[in-house]
Amino acid sequence: MQKWFEYNWLVREEWLDWCEELSEEEWQKQRVGGHQSFVKTLIHIVDVEHAWIRGLMGDPEQHYDYEAYRSLADVRRLSAEAAAEIRPFVQSWTDEWEEKSMHGFAYGDVMRHAIAHEIHHIGQLSVWARELGRKPITANLILRGSR
Amino acid sequence: MQKWFEYNWLVREEWLDWCEELSEEEWQKQRVGGHQSFVKTLIHIVDVEHAWIRGLMGDPEQHYDYEAYRSLADVRRLSAEAAAEIRPFVQSWTDEWEEKSMHGFAYGDVMRHAIAHEIHHIGQLSVWARELGRKPITANLILRGSR
Repeated sequence: MQKWFEYNWLVREEWLDWCEELSEEEWQKQRVGGHQSFVKTLIHIVDVEHAWIRGLMGDPEQHYDYEAYRSLADVRRLSAEAAAEIRPFVQSWTDEWEEKSMHGFAYGDVMRHAIAHEIHHIGQLSVWARELGRKPITANLILRGSR
Repeated sequence: MQKWFEYNWLVREEWLDWCEELSEEEWQKQRVGGHQSFVKTLIHIVDVEHAWIRGLMGDPEQHYDYEAYRSLADVRRLSAEAAAEIRPFVQSWTDEWEEKSMHGFAYGDVMRHAIAHEIHHIGQLSVWARELGRKPITANLILRGSR
């Protein structure tokens, strides 16, 4: 399970670096699909992972105010803070928690849901990248040096 | 690991059903990103999963001829055949195989690579669906009845 989160965090970090090349307009621009912009989709990725894993940690549901994060620096800070909060739980994950239940959901399924959620939205960013004529960050989990 | 493949196969099946609503032109049309069309991206999803898992099964690398599959019925047949071939291996997966090596890659990483690959490309389909003004298949792993 840890390896999945490490993969997502690495890919996210590379996308945040990639976004440095975008103009302010490209970063904010309303697009089709996902959460309609690079900025909102990346906030959503951070928010949803954070909310579900906090739930598994026994903390009350909490969502970020998407309007409060505008710049790439804001989203980087948000991503770092959110990941720092849930990392200890992720790192201590053991398969013995697979069948533990939260509101009727198995812990293992919630983890996989959060993981798949990010990969899915990252796939959307890759289409927008191509629309901008730019090469997206690879989704490769092995062979990350290639396409 | 099995749960990931079951999730991907279910989501793929729902997308194949969803594609029944597309016109021949929408199904074949060249688009931006992914493998440039619904038909080619879905063939690619099937092909890549099949190729990697066959590798783990000890079978020689083999790729499908993308030009040989045109209709939705062709792709459904391809997907069913490919999944049938690798299903026994997936179902017999045990975490003891995590660190087994194939050409220097850990079996577990190859499995995760194949899984993430499909989820990523499915995310691309969801953008194209919105471009067509249609609601995409949900990526939810839990709560699949909702968005």
